[in-house]
This record gives sequence, structure tokens and C-alpha cells, in this order.
Amino acid sequence: MSKALPKRAENYSEWYNEIVKRADLAENSAVRGCMVIKPYGYAIWEKMQRALDDMFKETGHQNAYFPLFVPKSFLEKEEEHAEGFAKECAVVTHYRLKANPDGKGLIVDPNAKLEEELVIRPTSEAVIWNTYKTWIQSWRDLPILINQWANVVRWEMRTRLFLRTAEFLWQEGHTAHATEAEAIEETEKMLGVYATFAEEWMAMPVIKGAKTANERFAGAVETYCIEALMQDGKALQSGTSHFLGQNFAKSFDVKFVNRENQLEFAWATSWGVSTRMIGALIMAHSDDNGLVLPPRLAPIQVVIVPIYRSEEDLAKISERVNPIVEKLKSNGISVKYDTNDHNKPGWKFAEYELKGVPVRLGIGMRDLENGTVEVARRDLLTKEIVALKGIEEKIANLLDEIQTNIYQKAFRFREENTHKVDTWEEFQAQIEKGGFILAHWDGTAETEEKIKTETKATIRCIPFGEAEETGKCVRSGEPSDRRVVFARAY
Amino acid sequence: MSKALPKRAENYSEWYNEIVKRADLAENSAVRGCMVIKPYGYAIWEKMQRALDDMFKETGHQNAYFPLFVPKSFLEKEEEHAEGFAKECAVVTHYRLKANPDGKGLIVDPNAKLEEELVIRPTSEAVIWNTYKTWIQSWRDLPILINQWANVVRWEMRTRLFLRTAEFLWQEGHTAHATEAEAIEETEKMLGVYATFAEEWMAMPVIKGAKTANERFAGAVETYCIEALMQDGKALQSGTSHFLGQNFAKSFDVKFVNRENQLEFAWATSWGVSTRMIGALIMAHSDDNGLVLPPRLAPIQVVIVPIYRSEEDLAKISERVNPIVEKLKSNGISVKYDTNDHNKPGWKFAEYELKGVPVRLGIGMRDLENGTVEVARRDLLTKEIVALKGIEEKIANLLDEIQTNIYQKAFRFREENTHKVDTWEEFQAQIEKGGFILAHWDGTAETEEKIKTETKATIRCIPFGEAEETGKCVRSGEPSDRRVVFARAY
Repeated sequence: MSKALPKRAENYSEWYNEIVKRADLAENSAVRGCMVIKPYGYAIWEKMQRALDDMFKETGHQNAYFPLFVPKSFLEKEEEHAEGFAKECAVVTHYRLKANPDGKGLIVDPNAKLEEELVIRPTSEAVIWNTYKTWIQSWRDLPILINQWANVVRWEMRTRLFLRTAEFLWQEGHTAHATEAEAIEETEKMLGVYATFAEEWMAMPVIKGAKTANERFAGAVETYCIEALMQDGKALQSGTSHFLGQNFAKSFDVKFVNRENQLEFAWATSWGVSTRMIGALIMAHSDDNGLVLPPRLAPIQVVIVPIYRSEEDLAKISERVNPIVEKLKSNGISVKYDTNDHNKPGWKFAEYELKGVPVRLGIGMRDLENGTVEVARRDLLTKEIVALKGIEEKIANLLDEIQTNIYQKAFRFREENTHKVDTWEEFQAQIEKGGFILAHWDGTAETEEKIKTETKATIRCIPFGEAEETGKCVRSGEPSDRRVVFARAY
Repeated sequence: MSKALPKRAENYSEWYNEIVKRADLAENSAVRGCMVIKPYGYAIWEKMQRALDDMFKETGHQNAYFPLFVPKSFLEKEEEHAEGFAKECAVVTHYRLKANPDGKGLIVDPNAKLEEELVIRPTSEAVIWNTYKTWIQSWRDLPILINQWANVVRWEMRTRLFLRTAEFLWQEGHTAHATEAEAIEETEKMLGVYATFAEEWMAMPVIKGAKTANERFAGAVETYCIEALMQDGKALQSGTSHFLGQNFAKSFDVKFVNRENQLEFAWATSWGVSTRMIGALIMAHSDDNGLVLPPRLAPIQVVIVPIYRSEEDLAKISERVNPIVEKLKSNGISVKYDTNDHNKPGWKFAEYELKGVPVRLGIGMRDLENGTVEVARRDLLTKEIVALKGIEEKIANLLDEIQTNIYQKAFRFREENTHKVDTWEEFQAQIEKGGFILAHWDGTAETEEKIKTETKATIRCIPFGEAEETGKCVRSGEPSDRRVVFARAY
């Protein structure tokens, strides 16, 4: 193994970068701002996709695929949307290269200029609502409940692997409804799906709430979000669900005949999560030894490392281990039996620790004699010797236990780092320590902006399900009827 | 239902377009050459993806993701590759739009011109081999067995839904090996995977073979392919597997220390299949009544249509049908029980026939009394009354039988439409009738080109596993030692 990871306490940002690199999750590509997602990182994404896709289908959604390109004129149609995305988009202007007549290589063929420029989708509302126009005539055509798995591009100037990249992978749901109430219900339902996924699969507690007007998706009436707390005390928005009202229906003229036989604009939602969640997963749970993965998203849930000196010893160990591997696999547990001869057991132990494999079994000749195996937990970094007999059920239980423990640890961390604050002095002091701050806010964009400028804290959300409580805005002293969640954020 | 489909015999091309449209598979988008893949079409793609992905993983491959953008200078590096793809690519030249200072809308911001243009990937050899350079130092780093599921763009001037579109979805495998023999073995293995998928899942017999130099992938040493015969007698290339030699390793300077401790360039393969396969699937099996889907790729394998007059009748039917639905689902069969009240049974029958659902059950009050159900097969358009008791096993068997029957029908069709031809007169007459022609060829690009110009027939492949046979080239009369496969093609 190469030198130790940077410590979280010393340099959180460097620690993150090094984990991504050393655990073989992703790397920067030669194309500015774009990443290469390496097989181990992509395997986590595949597990996320499978779980989310199943949940989308259970809630009645179907997948489809729409074009990568958005004609410039489509992007212009919804004004706020255009303003929000025009400043950071990749623009296709030509459709051909040709040999350079003056020398080597290729040049853009000036004769192949597009009549209308095409933008690489930063999100697909425009291209999808232009399509829905022809799909929606009557209330009988509604609802349309569609999701798309796709790549999108936003020309970010400062990028970080997984957290903010020019190209990223995501899913985007785009639904159309006959009534406002139904669209709002959908917006809430999908936020619920995201929260369930974050908590039950990613083992990451989240706060559900609404964004302020300032922080809304460009073109939305309401943006709901889930917010998680990272170990450095910064918040990370991990998924958003937008109620779009009739904005896109109006921009793209999508009218339908309702049950009362009247023409009406359709109601819309959109919702998405992206490869950014992999960044959240890393930052929520990992430690100074490397990645810590919740079992439900771990590409390898159990690794078995044989400890042996001779080929005969290995053969004896394998004879005992192979049926265990088969049994675990048939129970749906992903297991790797690492008999690779190039690397020593010690190297393997460190490697799988770095890669966050939840359970590691070590088994040598002494274990065979005693009918035991050494079981190591990645989350607690503990080891114990247990009987080989019935090991399969023990592992299944242990994986559940680890999943729960990782969640609870993150939950406790969030509890310990969430503070109610009532004065501006307290606020300024607390924000330096990180964490969520629950404070009163007067509801104006002006105060929100002032707080952001002065402390770099933003309103993460107006949380759902909190009791109303009258108070005074922590900054302006004006009256407020509820606390909102402040934090510095990624 | 609207008017009948065009007949295959009358207008095959129009028949194809109408099936794609009426079965809700896909439609043209507002973006030139790009399609919208609708939920029913996308569901077929998802089934294809799942089956292929499982096969790729069983053969040791992992998924990863590389950038959408290829810098122009990368595309230039492999000369033939550049020549093959530069003429039809989407070029990103700017990264920002701005408000039009002279009027309404957005314009490209001239200050946001990229230093180097980016091409939307037409295929990813260039960007991937530039990455592999840093991954490969020693023979211990090899093989690298990676696959990517992605969208690609080739600026085709004449497009057709699924068969040829500017943007399409595909998978592209990119592997690196320490020896030539191993790379060739991989190229053959993946062609085998494609052939197995085509025959066992798509129920579509294919010929495996090598492309002539003329028809090779730009940058490949050898291109292997699978070729299928459509019902109009034209061939469709359904998948390709390329042995790339050391071409890309040389262009991107990917060297490794081999077992003999010498520096050597890595050996490469790439292989891909795309949404084009959905076009092949439609054209291989469907009939004048609509889509015919092989059960293993059908989004809905069984549909159950209740025939009733009153709500009470429906309740009685559902009481009997619901346990059957549950049982089928738990057997892994995708079943739809269509109790939609808007449409009559006759409408539903026609709709599911059009959509190619392999098995349809119709059940009314009389059936309940008799303990029977009407079972209709989409492939043969036959119906029979069978006992409800044990229907679940009968359906499972029937689905297998349909899968086999569809394959055998396509196989017989190909046999009947494959002809050995030994004279130029025969060749000219036979090519007008369609089908595969097995004929001798002198091995020159000149003759190949002449035949193409004169008859529109191309050499689909030099087939594998055929006995050598001396003869005379059907066009030039020069000596030949094997027959090759000619056809007109999509």
C-alpha cells in the first residue's frame, strides 16, 4: 500500500479526493470538467439505479428516451428556464469536420454550420414538453408518468468528482397531470421516494423540505429537496422534486380537454437525482481508513481472504470456502473469494478496507482445524472469531446490522450537529462550527441574501412537518412563523 | 382502431414505419434525425440491455462510463478512424449562450468559444484509449475488460427510426490485452455472445463472419459481424466485434512491460450493438397485423382480457383471475390484467395483437362456468379453449413454444432465401428477388465495388465455419477459394 490517506480532520477536501482516486471510483478525464467513472464507482451507480428504477416502476412510472439535443429556440421558450441554463451549456454549431487544407489534422467545416444551434441537454423539460404537446389531447391521456436515465451537461467552471461535473449521469422524471392537486401529490410522492432511498439504501438521514424562491429550479413553482449533512458539517442537496405548475405547458402550448370538456393547460412535475449521490455516500460515511459502504449499495458485500503457505493449504481452504460462496450467492449476497496469488493477505485486508467492503472473512489452516473464521466489520473496524457452522446466516444478519448501524451513526452525527439558534451572534459562531442551524427567517430574499453574503450560509430548505413556531428573524429581527434550515453547502 | 396496416408485400417500408408508430415504439423528434423512444419501445430495449449485460458480466466484463466529448485532437490521432467519423459528427464550439442584445431570445456568446472543439462521441475508442494510457503499465494490469452503455451521435443525412438515427443508444465494449491471440479470442467470444443473444433472445438466426476490408470499422484490423435476413429479403448487420490490433495503442502511446520485461503496445478490441436491434427485431418477425415479439423480449408476455357486462361479472372474473396473475408473476412472467373500462374487449384484442403480446387470454362468464379460458397465440394467430386448471404451467410451456416457433419460422425463411449462385446472370436475377447469395468472389476491392455499383449488393461477410471450396469469381471469373455472402442491405 502507498502512504496513508489524509485525515478528515486535517484536510477534508483532500481526504475526499484521495478516497475517490484510491478506491478506484472515478478520475478526471482529459476533457475539462468531465469524469471517467471507473468500474468500482460505476458498480455503485448500477446498484443505485436498480433500486431507484424498481421504486419508480412500483409507483407507476415507465422509462423512455428523449434526444440529447435541445434546439436553442426550445430553450428560449420558458423564460426563467432559459435564464437559468443558457449561461452554462455546451453548444453544437456544426455537423462536420474536414481535413485541414492548410496543413495537418481536422478543422470545422464552415459549410456545415447548423441553421439553428443545438444545446446539449442540461435537463430535458424543453424537449420533453415539446413532445408531450402531441401526446396530450384529453384528460384520458393523463397522467403521463415517465422517467429517463440519461447524461446531461452543464458547463460548470469549478468541478469536483461526482459532486459537480460538466457531464453527469442522472435520472429525470417528467410527469403531466390533469389537475394541480395531482401534480403536487406526485411532486411530494417522488420526494418521498428519494428520502426512502437515501435513508434505507444510502443509510443517510435527510431533511425533506421546500427551497426558497431564490434556490428554486429555473422554471418551477416549487422545488422540494432532500438535504443531508456531511461529516465536515456542510450540507449536500441530494435530490430535488419540482412542481412546475403550468409553466411548461404554457410555454409549449400543451392543452387538453378536461372532464368538464374545457381546454386547460396540463400540470407538470419533474424530479431527479444524479451521480452526485455517490459523492454524498462517500462523504456521509467514510473514515480515515477509506470508503465505508452501506451493504445494500456495496458492489462487493463480503470478501473472503484465504491465508495459506502452500498450494495444498489453499486447496483445503477452498474446499471449505467454495460451498459457503455458493450459498451466499444463492442468497443474493455478492461475495468475492480472493485467491489472487500476487498479493499477500495483509495487502488484501488494507485494499478491501480502503474499498469499503462491509464484511471481510479471513480463514487459515488454524481456522480449518478449529472450525472457525475471522470476521471483520468495516463500519466498526472490529474483528471476531466465529464458528464456520451457520456462517451464512450470521453474515446475512451482520449485513443488516451494519446497514442499520451506519444509518444510526449518521443520524446521531446529524442530531449532534443540528442547533436551534436565536441570536445573530450565536448564528455567526455556530456556522463556523458547521452543521445544520434551525433559525427564524423573515421570509425575504433580501435577508436570505444578506445572510449568505455575510456567512456563506444558505437556506437549505423550509422543512416539512415541523410545528409552526412564532419568533423573530435571526438577522433582521422581523417576525417569523417558522424556523428554516441553514448551512454552508456543497 | 384506425385503418389497417399497410401490407408487407405491398409496401414494406411503409409497413415498418406504421408498426413503429402504431405500436407506440418510437417517433421522430423535433430535432433532425433524433428519435423519441416511447415507453413500450424502451421497455424492449431494457429487456435487451438486461440480457446482454448479464452475458457481458458472465464473461468477465465490468461497466464504466467515459465522457460524451471527444477533443478534436483525439479524433485526429488514428488516421483511418478520423477519416471514418469526421464527416458526420456534431461539433461543440461554444460553452455559453447569452441574451440577444439586438432583440429577443438567445445567441451564442462569441466570448465563450472553446479553445479546442469537442466532438460528440460517434464511438469512444479515442477517449477510452487516451484513458487506458494511464491505466496500463504492466502485463499485470491486463486484460482490461470494460463495457459502456451510452448514447452516441453520427450525423446521418437519411435517417429511419431505430435503423439509422443521428443519436442512438448502444453498448460499446473496449478491451485491452497483453497478446494478439488473447485479443482475437476476445473478438470472437463477443461475436459469439451477440450471436447467442440474437438467436436465443431475439429468435433471429444470424450468420457470423468477417467483413471485407472495404466494410471494416474505421481503425480496425478485422471486423466480425452477425448478419440477419429481414422479411423483404434485405440483410441487416446486427452487431459487430472488432479486432483493433495495436492501432489505437500506437496512436495513444499505450505501452506496457510484458512478461519478458520488454515494452510492447497493448492489443485492443471493441464491440457494440445498438437500438438498431429493435429495428431488426420488428422486421424479422412481425406480420400484417402488427408486431410479433419473441416472449423473452416482450415487455408484456401475457395479457388477460375479461369479457363482462356488469360490475358483478367483472368481480367474479377477477376473483378467478387474480390468483393466476399472482402465480404468473411469481414465476417471473410479465402479465397484464386489463380491466380498463374505456375500451371494449374487441378493441383490446386488436391493440395487443398490434403490440405483439405473445399470449392473450380471454375470459368471460361462460368460461367461468366451464372452468375454461380462451388462449390466443400471437405468432400463429390461433385460438383454443383450454382448462383453467393448471393454466400457469401451460402458459410457461406455451411461451417457450412460441419462442422456438418464431425462431424456426425465421430460420426456415432464411433457408428458403439463401441461394448458391455461380454465374453472373443468375446473380443479377437472384439479387432482384432478395435474400442471401452465396457466391465466389476473387477477393479484390475492385470487383466488390463493381458488384455493388451494378447490383446494389454488398458482401455482408466472409462467413465463418464454411468449408473451403475452389471456384471462380461470379463477376470476374478469377479463381476463388471460398464463397462469401452477398445481399442488399439496410
